[in-house]
Amino acid sequence: MDIAKLGEFGLIDHLTKDIKTKNESTKYGVGDDCAVLCYPDKEVLITTDLLMEGVHFDLTYIDLQHLGYKSAMVNISDIFAMNGTPRQMTVSLAISKRFSVEDIEQFYQGLRLACEKWNVDIIGGDTTSSYTGLAISITCIGEARKEDIVYRNGAKDTDLICVSGDLGAAYMGLQLLEREKSVYYQQVEEARKKNDKRALEELSHFQPDFAGKEYLLQRQLQTEARGDIIEKLREAGIRPTAMMDISDGLSSELMHICKQSGVGCRIYEKNIPIDYQTAVMAEEMNMNVTTCALNGGEDYELLFTVPIGDHEKIENIEDIKLIGHITDEKFGKVLVTRDNQEFELKAQGWNPLEK
Amino acid sequence: MDIAKLGEFGLIDHLTKDIKTKNESTKYGVGDDCAVLCYPDKEVLITTDLLMEGVHFDLTYIDLQHLGYKSAMVNISDIFAMNGTPRQMTVSLAISKRFSVEDIEQFYQGLRLACEKWNVDIIGGDTTSSYTGLAISITCIGEARKEDIVYRNGAKDTDLICVSGDLGAAYMGLQLLEREKSVYYQQVEEARKKNDKRALEELSHFQPDFAGKEYLLQRQLQTEARGDIIEKLREAGIRPTAMMDISDGLSSELMHICKQSGVGCRIYEKNIPIDYQTAVMAEEMNMNVTTCALNGGEDYELLFTVPIGDHEKIENIEDIKLIGHITDEKFGKVLVTRDNQEFELKAQGWNPLEK
Repeated sequence: MDIAKLGEFGLIDHLTKDIKTKNESTKYGVGDDCAVLCYPDKEVLITTDLLMEGVHFDLTYIDLQHLGYKSAMVNISDIFAMNGTPRQMTVSLAISKRFSVEDIEQFYQGLRLACEKWNVDIIGGDTTSSYTGLAISITCIGEARKEDIVYRNGAKDTDLICVSGDLGAAYMGLQLLEREKSVYYQQVEEARKKNDKRALEELSHFQPDFAGKEYLLQRQLQTEARGDIIEKLREAGIRPTAMMDISDGLSSELMHICKQSGVGCRIYEKNIPIDYQTAVMAEEMNMNVTTCALNGGEDYELLFTVPIGDHEKIENIEDIKLIGHITDEKFGKVLVTRDNQEFELKAQGWNPLEK
Repeated sequence: MDIAKLGEFGLIDHLTKDIKTKNESTKYGVGDDCAVLCYPDKEVLITTDLLMEGVHFDLTYIDLQHLGYKSAMVNISDIFAMNGTPRQMTVSLAISKRFSVEDIEQFYQGLRLACEKWNVDIIGGDTTSSYTGLAISITCIGEARKEDIVYRNGAKDTDLICVSGDLGAAYMGLQLLEREKSVYYQQVEEARKKNDKRALEELSHFQPDFAGKEYLLQRQLQTEARGDIIEKLREAGIRPTAMMDISDGLSSELMHICKQSGVGCRIYEKNIPIDYQTAVMAEEMNMNVTTCALNGGEDYELLFTVPIGDHEKIENIEDIKLIGHITDEKFGKVLVTRDNQEFELKAQGWNPLEK
């Protein structure tokens, strides 16, 4: 169905008509100049992200349902990174003419799946057109008790540095998608040069080769916010001293924590958690897997520091790895390699302004 | 200066380094995964807008400082439209390569001017690149006591319908800008056809003719949120029964209030406030000025209803006009013209999805 037929309010109605809000803090959702929330006992956490087609996502790789899911998850992830609980979300879309109502329904389906997973209410937004690509702006609102909020600036000398899950896989997933895309275009070009119509016909059924690399794709296309880790930390009675989510790469994020906490760090290459598929793919691509884990973005794992006294508690939690420790600022930010060499950490994280 | 040089974090640092938050409810602003707010006694209002170049603004008409000011004001206006007080704002920008650091500074200057006017703290956002036009996403957060919040759905039979300021001027300002732009391009084309180099040289100093129409330009380019009206209503002890701001045109907004309140309305053409310059411009453009006032957007005046008992109080407030009254739903939504004819109101407001 053509979007212009429905109009802005028609489309918003259509997408949000069966949304029921579930959180007590949501007093009024979609349908007025503002949404209305109530947080008498907790502090309110606010995070926002603007995602642009061509810069943050490529619709030849990711379908709209996964994109909706991911857009919601990356914002939910920021609430967890403050040790909070996500509660509400506003969603603004700028849509170009090439999208149909069904496309936007797909996007909302993914978005709502992510919101249902973490019990987040969709409370409003804005739907408008774009002359060019798709733009997605999401604001997520969460809550936390004042004493539970974890900032980036609380890391202290001797604290342990931990990460959840494994790193570099989302980046490798992107490399894989880009490789298969270029293989496809190469074959198309060759067939065109030879004017080989049969080859061109066959290429219309081109199947990218993802065998044995499903995990990398999943990490790139089906982002999960690590609320489960936050729950495990709570159950274990651990309150991180500093925390953030890894969206731009471990190296860059760790440098934020060090800078804002006024400390140094020492991490060990051998401790950085890397999945087997990530390592295989890096080898195939002739890339250093540690570099990928340090600088590859979009893993959305949690990076956090805990007091050294929590050493044993942390080691008993599945899916959390201890990768090093915080030092005095004067010792700098150091990576110790497998062969015991020391390097100064550098942030080569993804810079969206250099795209 | 080239933006890529500074990088995302460098640019955010540069733009936000001297921002000081002033509201008690702002616990933590720019610099972490989330901003942190505290609203123990009030309800929290949230509104968001996504503005796309080419759809919502044209940088050949509006400079970046005015655009920053307007982007902030239209969001602040939504908080006032709930009878709230704006407190915080997040700002996300997607910037194409053609913008310099100085351009973005200009945008922020306008933004901060608007925020300072209404004592709003800038608490975060996102800065990224765009392959195409500029995209601006703003979320504004405000507060109100639960009993003070005014929704769209509270209008009752016999309530009086009021608007602040005057209507149609912002739309006429846009017509004026578009007319002068087309005059310019026409002259350039003619000079090119004749290969008249002297005329082309002169056209590089082209001065659009805005004489006597300064108010229209101001209404289009320097949007003001009507917080002063909210204050006056409070001082007079008036609590509107329903309210919204007029962004898409009086007709469309009034229909929202009627639909959500389950009522009808009756407004009088002769009472719709129209500035002299708006009337003159409509005549020049061969347009019906009432149609402009009913359907022209971007005035950001307040449309609200008050109990009939407040009649005298309302009439004593400067810059508020009584344009009609609420009726039972069965009487429909009626415009009474100057010659006492009755028409069914239609929403022909601006549809951003039809651009």
